[in-house]
Amino acid sequence: MLLAGYLGPSGTFSEQAAYAYFNNINEYQLIPFPTIQDLLQAVDKGEVSKGVVPIENSIEGAVNTTVDMLAFEVNLKIQAEIVIPVRHYFIGFEEFGFGEIKAVLSHPQAIAQCRNYLHTHVPKAEIVFTSSTAEAVREVAANKAPRAAVGTLLAAKKYGLSVLDSDIQDNKHNETRFVVLGKEEGKRGAKCKTSLVFSTENKPGELYRVLNIFSLWDVNMTKILSRPSKTRLGEYVFFVDLEGHILEEDMKNALMMVQRKTSFYKLLGSYEIIE
Amino acid sequence: MLLAGYLGPSGTFSEQAAYAYFNNINEYQLIPFPTIQDLLQAVDKGEVSKGVVPIENSIEGAVNTTVDMLAFEVNLKIQAEIVIPVRHYFIGFEEFGFGEIKAVLSHPQAIAQCRNYLHTHVPKAEIVFTSSTAEAVREVAANKAPRAAVGTLLAAKKYGLSVLDSDIQDNKHNETRFVVLGKEEGKRGAKCKTSLVFSTENKPGELYRVLNIFSLWDVNMTKILSRPSKTRLGEYVFFVDLEGHILEEDMKNALMMVQRKTSFYKLLGSYEIIE
Repeated sequence: MLLAGYLGPSGTFSEQAAYAYFNNINEYQLIPFPTIQDLLQAVDKGEVSKGVVPIENSIEGAVNTTVDMLAFEVNLKIQAEIVIPVRHYFIGFEEFGFGEIKAVLSHPQAIAQCRNYLHTHVPKAEIVFTSSTAEAVREVAANKAPRAAVGTLLAAKKYGLSVLDSDIQDNKHNETRFVVLGKEEGKRGAKCKTSLVFSTENKPGELYRVLNIFSLWDVNMTKILSRPSKTRLGEYVFFVDLEGHILEEDMKNALMMVQRKTSFYKLLGSYEIIE
Repeated sequence: MLLAGYLGPSGTFSEQAAYAYFNNINEYQLIPFPTIQDLLQAVDKGEVSKGVVPIENSIEGAVNTTVDMLAFEVNLKIQAEIVIPVRHYFIGFEEFGFGEIKAVLSHPQAIAQCRNYLHTHVPKAEIVFTSSTAEAVREVAANKAPRAAVGTLLAAKKYGLSVLDSDIQDNKHNETRFVVLGKEEGKRGAKCKTSLVFSTENKPGELYRVLNIFSLWDVNMTKILSRPSKTRLGEYVFFVDLEGHILEEDMKNALMMVQRKTSFYKLLGSYEIIE
């Protein structure tokens, strides 16, 4: 039995992403990890074979811990990408009406994402923060009281609570991109992406010169993200996502040129997009 | 007397940045605000004339609340930029030796930035999180006990505590960039920058075409930051910092062209760099 880690606790969107990926791969046992750092280090040291972590959310942006660790701290390959819609559920006991609910428990980010809903439907309920949405559901399930949690469908099922309302997040375009990480290259799929991180010499126009290479080779860049190089203010590394696989001729040629024109270059992998 | 707000409480780096800017401007009274949102909305509504908020840190990257609000929620101009080195001080009572210190209080981010130092010098002290570094210093000052805080020099002075050690942050290249925001354009200084935010049509090569304009007009881009457009995953707005002032001919021409080639365009201001 091989081991695969996900950002825990059980009942989070990361577990849902891990299920989506490992669905048909019975040889993996899924293990929750308390932090992204712990998980990526465990994959890097070979303590688990694969790790599933969030890398970007459509509202919050990049998950900085994940991208910074991939650039600076571990040598891992992105093997696959999975996009999970962020759907928050209002979870509790059917015995109590909305007007009776005294407290709503959840992670601060989930509470923030459902602010309008909670303000409209349970304006008088006290808000109680927990360390994860799954922890909120577990606490509500622990004793029968007029309390509710904001959490995932997975957590509601796991702790035997009722779904009182669905899709309660204020912004309906809320999605999170997860990546599967491991020591080896991922396999080539029908739809592929290539991710890399680089920095240029700190001279005017250097970034433009690199993007020019993608343009010359007709390689489509779907994303660019800058992060501090952590050396001094105003110096950055750039994360770029490209459409296609490194085994394609144009991509290979473009990246060969990028590598020559950059002062730091790290290929994060060519990988399949799971849809 | 005019009012200017900063991200509070008193004794934080934001207050230090506000002092640096308003030093010679006696007509302003400085007021702390509990959150960046509250402060920017107060400036937008004209309740205070100016606001000083962090926009970028050399280790953590962009302050997302500030950049997202400037793009989507308020109509404010950047009037000046101030860079403050992040220096953490170990603050307490001289009567107690390091070996006696039972607890260290501070904001989670400050604790994280001094992790190695604390691990080496007070390995057995309990870590207690507070809502700000200033709050940590205030709490330690409140009763004479073998406890210490990680905070600013300003806060140590304010609460009458001793500096037990200086510059205890693990990364010595830690700086934060603050901006002064207001309803009007800032004044032109010796060294100027221009900031704008834009988005392009979601077609291959569109970002490259915009950067090409800066290159053609010899306008130096010192920073590019992408943030989610908050509509759907994979759509972004780009924040760009440029060297120079919009009253310069090349800059004016470049921006006129950028405005034509983008689907969303918002000038955040041409402003002086305070050094």
